[in-house]
Amino acid sequence: MKYVIGVDFGTLSARAIVAGLEDGHITGEGVSAYAKGVMTTALPDGTPLLGGDWALADPMDYLDSLRASIKGALDCAAVQKEDILSIAIASTACTLLPVTKDLTPLCALPGFASRPHAFAMLWKHHRAKAFARHMTDVAREMDIPVLNDYGGSISSEWAVPKAMEIMTQDPECYMAADRFMQLSDWLTARLVGDPDVQNASILAYKGMWRHHGGFPDDTYLAATGASVPEIIHQKLRGRRIPAGGPAGRLTASAAEALGLCPGTAVGMAHTDAHAAALGAGACKDGDYVYILGTSSCAHFLSRKKVVVPGVTGAIEDGLIPGLTCYSAGQACVGDMLDWFIQHTVPSQVREEAKRQGRNIHSLLEEQAAAQRPGECAVMALDWWNGNRSVLGNAALSGLLAGLTMDTRPADIYRALLDSIAFGHREIWENFQQKGLRPRQIILCGGIARKNRLLSQIIADVLNCPVSISEETQSTARGAAICAAAALEKEPGYDSLAKAVRRMKGGIAYILRPVAGHVSDYERLYGIYHRIHDFFGRENPGLMEELRNGFSART
Amino acid sequence: MKYVIGVDFGTLSARAIVAGLEDGHITGEGVSAYAKGVMTTALPDGTPLLGGDWALADPMDYLDSLRASIKGALDCAAVQKEDILSIAIASTACTLLPVTKDLTPLCALPGFASRPHAFAMLWKHHRAKAFARHMTDVAREMDIPVLNDYGGSISSEWAVPKAMEIMTQDPECYMAADRFMQLSDWLTARLVGDPDVQNASILAYKGMWRHHGGFPDDTYLAATGASVPEIIHQKLRGRRIPAGGPAGRLTASAAEALGLCPGTAVGMAHTDAHAAALGAGACKDGDYVYILGTSSCAHFLSRKKVVVPGVTGAIEDGLIPGLTCYSAGQACVGDMLDWFIQHTVPSQVREEAKRQGRNIHSLLEEQAAAQRPGECAVMALDWWNGNRSVLGNAALSGLLAGLTMDTRPADIYRALLDSIAFGHREIWENFQQKGLRPRQIILCGGIARKNRLLSQIIADVLNCPVSISEETQSTARGAAICAAAALEKEPGYDSLAKAVRRMKGGIAYILRPVAGHVSDYERLYGIYHRIHDFFGRENPGLMEELRNGFSART
Repeated sequence: MKYVIGVDFGTLSARAIVAGLEDGHITGEGVSAYAKGVMTTALPDGTPLLGGDWALADPMDYLDSLRASIKGALDCAAVQKEDILSIAIASTACTLLPVTKDLTPLCALPGFASRPHAFAMLWKHHRAKAFARHMTDVAREMDIPVLNDYGGSISSEWAVPKAMEIMTQDPECYMAADRFMQLSDWLTARLVGDPDVQNASILAYKGMWRHHGGFPDDTYLAATGASVPEIIHQKLRGRRIPAGGPAGRLTASAAEALGLCPGTAVGMAHTDAHAAALGAGACKDGDYVYILGTSSCAHFLSRKKVVVPGVTGAIEDGLIPGLTCYSAGQACVGDMLDWFIQHTVPSQVREEAKRQGRNIHSLLEEQAAAQRPGECAVMALDWWNGNRSVLGNAALSGLLAGLTMDTRPADIYRALLDSIAFGHREIWENFQQKGLRPRQIILCGGIARKNRLLSQIIADVLNCPVSISEETQSTARGAAICAAAALEKEPGYDSLAKAVRRMKGGIAYILRPVAGHVSDYERLYGIYHRIHDFFGRENPGLMEELRNGFSART
Repeated sequence: MKYVIGVDFGTLSARAIVAGLEDGHITGEGVSAYAKGVMTTALPDGTPLLGGDWALADPMDYLDSLRASIKGALDCAAVQKEDILSIAIASTACTLLPVTKDLTPLCALPGFASRPHAFAMLWKHHRAKAFARHMTDVAREMDIPVLNDYGGSISSEWAVPKAMEIMTQDPECYMAADRFMQLSDWLTARLVGDPDVQNASILAYKGMWRHHGGFPDDTYLAATGASVPEIIHQKLRGRRIPAGGPAGRLTASAAEALGLCPGTAVGMAHTDAHAAALGAGACKDGDYVYILGTSSCAHFLSRKKVVVPGVTGAIEDGLIPGLTCYSAGQACVGDMLDWFIQHTVPSQVREEAKRQGRNIHSLLEEQAAAQRPGECAVMALDWWNGNRSVLGNAALSGLLAGLTMDTRPADIYRALLDSIAFGHREIWENFQQKGLRPRQIILCGGIARKNRLLSQIIADVLNCPVSISEETQSTARGAAICAAAALEKEPGYDSLAKAVRRMKGGIAYILRPVAGHVSDYERLYGIYHRIHDFFGRENPGLMEELRNGFSART
């Protein structure tokens, strides 16, 4: 038996799996949480992070977790290292870090430990909103078609706005950095000893590069900022490799550190959300995968090429060669539920969960599941991290309406679940309006699997059956599929789509809409949509001013 | 020395004071919580209250607390009962109960203990919204001028909608009741042994009776419902006595039960909020008292008589003879803060408060006070109990906007305090627009005294100095003042205004607006006002449908 390894670098931990090449069965799994987690208020040395919207990580934690997760998976799988043919890494994106020529993260250099901009900026680091808005405004003024591929706006989460933040906030960091690398590129580059490897799909989604169009032209770039052409051409440079393509071979030192054989193939994977779509089985025209994690992503594969406003990307070959991948997503899903549990659930609910020996999510889900649609009387807007689609405005914020003296935690929990389904319906309607009609819908991600109520609400709100992936590690599986596809000489793996068909995860069950719920949810969605448009389209300044208009938080 | 007793029947407890007739100094105080509190989900015998918006009380608890609170005050004051010249009772209103001819509450009769409509309906019992709306609609259609005195709409809290609820929901209760009495009328009637005593001011505010106009005419009443003329003329009948007037003399049995002398004078007091305004010193043209308790009331005294939309009442002689009392208020103030503490404050805040040996309100107030205006980035609408002024719509509900992953309990607490001040500013602006300009503003009530931050925010939001009453028992003091005014033969107490001047509470301190806060709050109020109008005026159906539009809560 031959095997491949896929590693998923999420927001809080890395997860490695050992998967059989033949059919994708998982024989070993290892998880390693990052020692320092996400830094939002202080650096490891105590330096405070002032002004909010920070989300940094220490890249050295990623290296530790790479070793630990693979060791865990190998120990558990008990396979010979010679039987591991290939490895590939998927990660959050755009998670960007400044590195030196020899791939050392700046924060590991002497004198840089107190500089916030020497660390990795997570996808949800949201301090570059002004740059993103400026780039969008200039593109609109100059009528640059690049916006057509990105739903009409440039996100503050992307590489160039983040690089602009580094340049303006800490010019010495900017100068000291040879490049700003995507997390998965950096990890892959270290595995193969080649700083030039660069994931073409991530560059397309997060770096404004198009397979058939390249970067936007320099006239536009220079108009957005004098340094932007340099950022694009120098700081983000690399040798573009498609996802599922070969990145190189494991160096002797990397092999030793990981307990693998030198020369093992290293494949190019994807962002975590794209890898998850592969792991869940997306590979052909009409496939629609909705991934629910910390945030959410919906990927829709189509032969059609149309301009869709409000997507985060409409990228040719973005997921699978030959198809356009339309991507959109919500900036806050699991994050929002965790915020609720951590900062608003009162002692009595905590104690009740403890008494029943279960976690609070499951207790609240059970209470919320006992309600009919609308019975909670609360309506939420799911914008705790801003809105990524279809409004593309990171300065929006979350809302709860309908609160009364009778409102209890389970009511708000139910409203938050509803808001996830309604926020997704906005994305769905946006696709439908452009004639993009999915043939099958697969839900995956830990929350879809754990929270059956949420999946049922999604089916009810869409009035459409949804298939729930049984795979809880779709991203790691997708990375393993990319590792397999990189074995170009292996028969049956000569295309990424073929590798997906062999190794994808199964479907746990299909949820159909409940007839009695559909019309209630249709009415509730009408209320959501009206509030959505008031705050999101007609008066975005209200939330923007709340969030940005007053002296910075300290 | 001679004394009077004032008793304040609040939502959760009764409080009696013994006050010196000469200068109002308080020599004794007694408090008694109602044994069964407010019933919202079940009757004492376990009968469930289905469908939400219930707020019932057991009238027998009121009798127990009347005895206990007076006993406590007398024990503490150590005065001779012969030196107590008069007593008067203020209470929440419209708190309505069905009683027999001999003043027995229906719920105390055999066979009525399981009937929700045999109990007292508290002011905040909100199940008669449909009746109130219907009465308003008919008045508008028939162009009945009565609405001019009530801000343009009839509240579901008033006596007739509540009586209609009893009639339609439990006709046997309706038939068995000789009258539906206001709580303070019922208590006063029992003291003097005369079922006919009726407070003219409460009847004006809660029963649509006007000093110079009487009840609306029967054509209108009959058009709102065939039984409404009967409700008005029979079930709400009585001998109207102005506040501050004599109700009668204590019967021998009442005197024995209370430890007082038979024949002691009994005065007519007011609603709790009106009594509080007297206790805080309101007695002349231009006085404005803003009372912050479970809910809030603002009373403005003026010689002018104008039509003001959105007030809860504009009643001639409503507080003091010779002046029109314009009253408006928020349906939810302390209630909202308590909801927040009880249902959303997480364990860590509770534990921190415990560690510091203080209550949670005070901990959160301290954290919120460290913020600049707008720093919390959260905006609330203070409508947890609906909106009583200036929108007059009990089906509206609370809202929180601006929530992010950085939002913490103190941020929401600050936003709730801000929303109280903004909600009050709506009332204030409404008065100003009609040329009603206060000469001095007095804040009173437990929350104004305890929460200095809230009082400061009110000053900042109005851009106006505010005087904080040092009296924590303004309502009981106001009742004592009414007791004194009822001693018609006592020199110096021959008018209610004179009694107020002698016996009112003092001013603890004056808070002036902080220059640096005023402009920030002006901008924040702009955001509040926009959201207020969207949900309250332009799209009231959104919250109405959330609250009422789906199958009833069980």
